[in-house]
Amino acid sequence: MCRWLAYSGSPIFPEDLIFTPDNSLAAQSLHSCKAKVSVNGDGFGLGWYGERDVPGVYREVLPAWSDCNLRSLASSIRSGHFFAHIRASTGTATSRRNCHPFTYGKWLFMHNGQIGDYELQRRRLEALLHDDLYARREGSTDSELIFYLLFHFGLEENPLKALRATLEEVARSTEASGSRKPFRCTAALTDGRTNYAVRFSTDAHPPSLFWQERSEHTLIVSEPLDTAVGEWQQVPASTVLVTDPGNKVRTEAL
Amino acid sequence: MCRWLAYSGSPIFPEDLIFTPDNSLAAQSLHSCKAKVSVNGDGFGLGWYGERDVPGVYREVLPAWSDCNLRSLASSIRSGHFFAHIRASTGTATSRRNCHPFTYGKWLFMHNGQIGDYELQRRRLEALLHDDLYARREGSTDSELIFYLLFHFGLEENPLKALRATLEEVARSTEASGSRKPFRCTAALTDGRTNYAVRFSTDAHPPSLFWQERSEHTLIVSEPLDTAVGEWQQVPASTVLVTDPGNKVRTEAL
Amino acid sequence: MCRWLAYSGSPIFPEDLIFTPDNSLAAQSLHSCKAKVSVNGDGFGLGWYGERDVPGVYREVLPAWSDCNLRSLASSIRSGHFFAHIRASTGTATSRRNCHPFTYGKWLFMHNGQIGDYELQRRRLEALLHDDLYARREGSTDSELIFYLLFHFGLEENPLKALRATLEEVARSTEASGSRKPFRCTAALTDGRTNYAVRFSTDAHPPSLFWQERSEHTLIVSEPLDTAVGEWQQVPASTVLVTDPGNKVRTEAL
Amino acid sequence: MCRWLAYSGSPIFPEDLIFTPDNSLAAQSLHSCKAKVSVNGDGFGLGWYGERDVPGVYREVLPAWSDCNLRSLASSIRSGHFFAHIRASTGTATSRRNCHPFTYGKWLFMHNGQIGDYELQRRRLEALLHDDLYARREGSTDSELIFYLLFHFGLEENPLKALRATLEEVARSTEASGSRKPFRCTAALTDGRTNYAVRFSTDAHPPSLFWQERSEHTLIVSEPLDTAVGEWQQVPASTVLVTDPGNKVRTEAL
Repeated sequence: MCRWLAYSGSPIFPEDLIFTPDNSLAAQSLHSCKAKVSVNGDGFGLGWYGERDVPGVYREVLPAWSDCNLRSLASSIRSGHFFAHIRASTGTATSRRNCHPFTYGKWLFMHNGQIGDYELQRRRLEALLHDDLYARREGSTDSELIFYLLFHFGLEENPLKALRATLEEVARSTEASGSRKPFRCTAALTDGRTNYAVRFSTDAHPPSLFWQERSEHTLIVSEPLDTAVGEWQQVPASTVLVTDPGNKVRTEAL
Repeated sequence: MCRWLAYSGSPIFPEDLIFTPDNSLAAQSLHSCKAKVSVNGDGFGLGWYGERDVPGVYREVLPAWSDCNLRSLASSIRSGHFFAHIRASTGTATSRRNCHPFTYGKWLFMHNGQIGDYELQRRRLEALLHDDLYARREGSTDSELIFYLLFHFGLEENPLKALRATLEEVARSTEASGSRKPFRCTAALTDGRTNYAVRFSTDAHPPSLFWQERSEHTLIVSEPLDTAVGEWQQVPASTVLVTDPGNKVRTEAL
Repeated sequence: MCRWLAYSGSPIFPEDLIFTPDNSLAAQSLHSCKAKVSVNGDGFGLGWYGERDVPGVYREVLPAWSDCNLRSLASSIRSGHFFAHIRASTGTATSRRNCHPFTYGKWLFMHNGQIGDYELQRRRLEALLHDDLYARREGSTDSELIFYLLFHFGLEENPLKALRATLEEVARSTEASGSRKPFRCTAALTDGRTNYAVRFSTDAHPPSLFWQERSEHTLIVSEPLDTAVGEWQQVPASTVLVTDPGNKVRTEAL
Repeated sequence: MCRWLAYSGSPIFPEDLIFTPDNSLAAQSLHSCKAKVSVNGDGFGLGWYGERDVPGVYREVLPAWSDCNLRSLASSIRSGHFFAHIRASTGTATSRRNCHPFTYGKWLFMHNGQIGDYELQRRRLEALLHDDLYARREGSTDSELIFYLLFHFGLEENPLKALRATLEEVARSTEASGSRKPFRCTAALTDGRTNYAVRFSTDAHPPSLFWQERSEHTLIVSEPLDTAVGEWQQVPASTVLVTDPGNKVRTEAL
């Protein structure tokens, strides 16, 4: 299980969310409140949109709390749209290529959760990948695989449809494999403009997901960054949250 | 604050202490029971004596729980005498040169604790170092400095005397600096035969230290590796524990 | 292209081959004489047999010339059978999981060369892997894939047959893919007792491979470690070299 | 010996200098043309000015040619003022804290060269440092020390005077130590507006230094980034080059 946040709005320095709040992402890397595991120290990543369509990405295997480069980048790069992620491995290696967010073209993707008995399903699901994505697979995580499956299911034409089809396919695969472990997926996806965030599980325990909408920004988080009551709304299970620049947040059932 | 263990006895694979017990050192790196901070994820080190007088040392900046190399080394290198350490930084950088154990010639040293207001005292204490050790200073920690001070105070002639003089000097320096923070030091030192372990603080709260003596080995630890009652003895404050091959453990007041 | 060496004989410290000779493996990492690329700085690995059937493995992404841990391990661990490898990436990422030697059970494997247009063939070749090896795939290199293919072709029953079948299969796949790039493979394989070293290419330019047989040891290397004339024999193309403890080196045509 | 470049002018993506040219800094990390050593693979750093007075800094121990994060940062962060450096260690450890550029407040500093017999002089020169800089010393290089000495000699009031006094002090110290090795220093310093670049040696062989002035930018480099003749001017020995926004480059004898 991991923790993440997705920000879009007026440009800010990522440190305002990664380091400053009481329950900042760096604080969660040492001790998260709502995660299944308390420590999220198996690497981290920051992906941001700046002057290009393609995002910048910085991923590293150290815990977020101790990386001096992250501290400098987060206080130097101002961005109106970024993803940040801290990782707690569910079995695969601690390596940069297994760190989120994953990127391909203009897209960023990050994930908290797990494909139940992933090793039973990896081959079947990887077989679905387009040739170019298959060849590009660099890591070994279920998360990178889910990202690439989205392209198979038409991400570039219809992101919502691709999200639904991917979740359905992985859920079906999990069941077909005979696994009794759930497929859990709290994930965020963006093309640099619109954010799509899903909260999903094949059992009754999807990972937590919250959001906050203010005049200047929208923020989606695994868990609230501070304890101010009433500021955070919980995303219901089996729901996708869509945030567009200039529009209100909307939710749809998955 | 950090966690460590010092083993001497029949040759074993370090994994038996670093990975196997319920409260193994790797388990403590994620969640220690008795430390001031719960997570000890700012690097680790393993130093062992094998076929040479000079120990082998493996130090890395990743958390001990996730390093694949540590897992392989700890299950491959059998040793009758080794030190293992997991680090929780008290301010200095996460870098290999700041990881314990430190080594010089045949000596190994590791430390849990802190020189209060170290930055106020660093210059004064470094000025005491012999030229060759001053030039050899690679990291920036108070721990490496304490190790090198031991040589200034005659480690190679009389380790116990050097330990006492070093603790005294640092305590005096802390007081002279006007710092109100304590100097705390739970440390282990060895020449490859005899272990010296101290539990010391200038206030009433020295870090925890335990030991276990069996027919086949002696083991000194920051905190017990399992919960079997009666097996572990607490080292009293202001005490040095000395273990020699073939002799019983003895303690002396500092 | 990479550089490697395989030692078997009287136990020695690996530093005698990795650091001491004029053209040691560490020297080759900075400047190799016979490699297609001069610098082999994309990580390294050391795998050795000690007190267990399963080898110990240390792999790291730093260049071999600058890793302080490698220096200590190579001067501390005495072994009568070890593999060492320095990597020059042919496209895949610099990560520990892409460093050689690869290991599975009692086996070690390392490789210099390249599958031509690997990205065109990866899917087809990975589809051949046994379920447990498919699930275990951690990196993204063609080298790890070749290693796992050996198991598909019966490594555990008949290593020579598995080597031949694997080379043939990859060569056939390269041709079938329409690639005009060669498949080059200079590789070493061992179960901890017998070494198998192949020199192979689908074109006329297999990477260099040499060996040296003395009363006390056998040594197989990508390029000679020193310039003493007459001491090194070149392995002919399309040949496998087999070294057993107590027997003379023998070669067979592939 | 190391390689570096300092850019100031219209905002560009650092990749245009670090990766794109034939003899880009990344190319030089594998094979530099004019350096004493060909490979500069002991870490690298990028420091840039963006929206804050304080620069952002990214430093890493991998070779520049293989770091995926550097590639992404260099193509994402547009800056009108940045320093980039690739390191070839002259003896001190490969660690982030030993990588250039060094930063303190608004200042950046990077260096190519060496204090002759540094270990003989380190104590004497470190003794000159202000308390706050002494306490802040994180690495062990002569380069970081030279940077901090500049503050001792009044960097914040008069950078040119501080540069001269520091070079003089280190040269005097080298001589006083009895060392017969030269003190060589080709270094760049900036406050985020003005660049100061020096080419200096106590012997007749200062490291190479070139510059290029165009309408849109000034560029100072250890060696030319491409082979276009007549575009690069060599900085004379014992000279400081000063570049201000809006002014022509001027040189002064040291």
